[in-house]
Amino acid sequence: MHQSQTIERIRVRYGETDQMGHAYYANYLYWFEQARGAWCRDRGFTYKQFEERGVFLPVVEVHARYKGEVTYDDWIQVKVWVSEVKRAAIRFDYEITNESTGKVCTEGYSWHVFMGEERKAISIPEDIKGLLNRNPEDFETIG
Amino acid sequence: MHQSQTIERIRVRYGETDQMGHAYYANYLYWFEQARGAWCRDRGFTYKQFEERGVFLPVVEVHARYKGEVTYDDWIQVKVWVSEVKRAAIRFDYEITNESTGKVCTEGYSWHVFMGEERKAISIPEDIKGLLNRNPEDFETIG
Amino acid sequence: MHQSQTIERIRVRYGETDQMGHAYYANYLYWFEQARGAWCRDRGFTYKQFEERGVFLPVVEVHARYKGEVTYDDWIQVKVWVSEVKRAAIRFDYEITNESTGKVCTEGYSWHVFMGEERKAISIPEDIKGLLNRNPEDFETIG
Amino acid sequence: MHQSQTIERIRVRYGETDQMGHAYYANYLYWFEQARGAWCRDRGFTYKQFEERGVFLPVVEVHARYKGEVTYDDWIQVKVWVSEVKRAAIRFDYEITNESTGKVCTEGYSWHVFMGEERKAISIPEDIKGLLNRNPEDFETIG
Repeated sequence: MHQSQTIERIRVRYGETDQMGHAYYANYLYWFEQARGAWCRDRGFTYKQFEERGVFLPVVEVHARYKGEVTYDDWIQVKVWVSEVKRAAIRFDYEITNESTGKVCTEGYSWHVFMGEERKAISIPEDIKGLLNRNPEDFETIG
Repeated sequence: MHQSQTIERIRVRYGETDQMGHAYYANYLYWFEQARGAWCRDRGFTYKQFEERGVFLPVVEVHARYKGEVTYDDWIQVKVWVSEVKRAAIRFDYEITNESTGKVCTEGYSWHVFMGEERKAISIPEDIKGLLNRNPEDFETIG
Repeated sequence: MHQSQTIERIRVRYGETDQMGHAYYANYLYWFEQARGAWCRDRGFTYKQFEERGVFLPVVEVHARYKGEVTYDDWIQVKVWVSEVKRAAIRFDYEITNESTGKVCTEGYSWHVFMGEERKAISIPEDIKGLLNRNPEDFETIG
Repeated sequence: MHQSQTIERIRVRYGETDQMGHAYYANYLYWFEQARGAWCRDRGFTYKQFEERGVFLPVVEVHARYKGEVTYDDWIQVKVWVSEVKRAAIRFDYEITNESTGKVCTEGYSWHVFMGEERKAISIPEDIKGLLNRNPEDFETIG
């Protein structure tokens, strides 16, 4: 697996805060997902294309460690990379840096299984393995 | 159209607040939706059953007027009723009362079109018209 | 009021879709909010700065008309402008275009009151009136 | 620590689904939070009261394992209990059962630190320790 990283910048929405004054913990999972989408596009394909051909990657496990605050209007950088690939599953790791402090504020990972049209686990198709192994430097990012 | 009302009680989640300290304005639309679901169940059917037979009710218009605060852990009562029915569309009206103050805090409405499997507008099927006209007193609420 | 417009591009998240296959209606209110934030930054200030000096703009009314579909991974453009200003309130109008179809898919507006630290309506402070009247061409967008 | 459990029933909202047809993974964190609130009320106090006296419990870590599907309109039962207490932190464990299948569909946990008004970690106040140790059978649930 080519462990190259993709970084997705996201600005925190007002509706993503809670009354404690920082981002509610569930929103990080939306940001993880947005970063996964960017990771695909950096390698010349989209997750949407996977679903269009009947391959789905539901999340089967997620973990997040919140180490620092994220507040409204902050720019965050979500660094994402594939840390492990099994026969029918893939793990993405995340590291979020808050640009307003320059510090890593969150770390996490998620496991996804490959699922076919019949909603059952499948081995990763060979051509998709090829996509996952792409070096982003060799491909144009999909806009 | 039988203009009987249904009332759905909802407790406000922490994640539904924002840094201003009250519920973020988009969450009311989730509450409207939950109340519509309860309205159906009060008349002995579910919206889920509509979709299972290929009838969808996407929202084509929504309006909300926020008159009073809703904060974390408040119980709210969402009163919902059908205020108008057209050939291929239906309007729900909402009135939210905050139990902690006893006052109406929000009013709103939403318009929905009836859509078939082909994702095109359809006239309201006759049997569904019958469901919509039911008097909740004559039917058992679906749990 | 200088009715210049700001356009904010947003890519639709997977978590913003629902089982009907397009964006759930409440998410548009998050996008409206993000566009309001961009409108401020285009004029050289931020909404965050308002709150830091004790001025809040809670939403008191919102309306949206959904005319076309928005699906996962679509780029949308939220055009936002101030359409009306009263002594203590301001109205933003929105027009969302789906880049994948080139068509306007949603129109809406929101009314906001100006509120001070004591959580009571206040007249718009003179200096803030000045900010709201700025021509974005004369100011540098805040990054 | 009294490891008694609380069970919170929640019905899945339409807006909590995604285009894959089941609940989006971030929503489980909202359900965990709702269950924590119910856990407190079962012991005669509320989390809201904690914040009113200046004690906050931000999440510092969360984990979820998704083992089965949750779909629109399903009733789920979120079982929650305190599995560990440290000097300044507390861990809640969760087990979600989907009533429509009768099976456990999700397991998870979250770690929370105790934080004071100055937004710094504090040892758990003695009286709060007492609240956390309460046997729900001895206390009336707060409505």
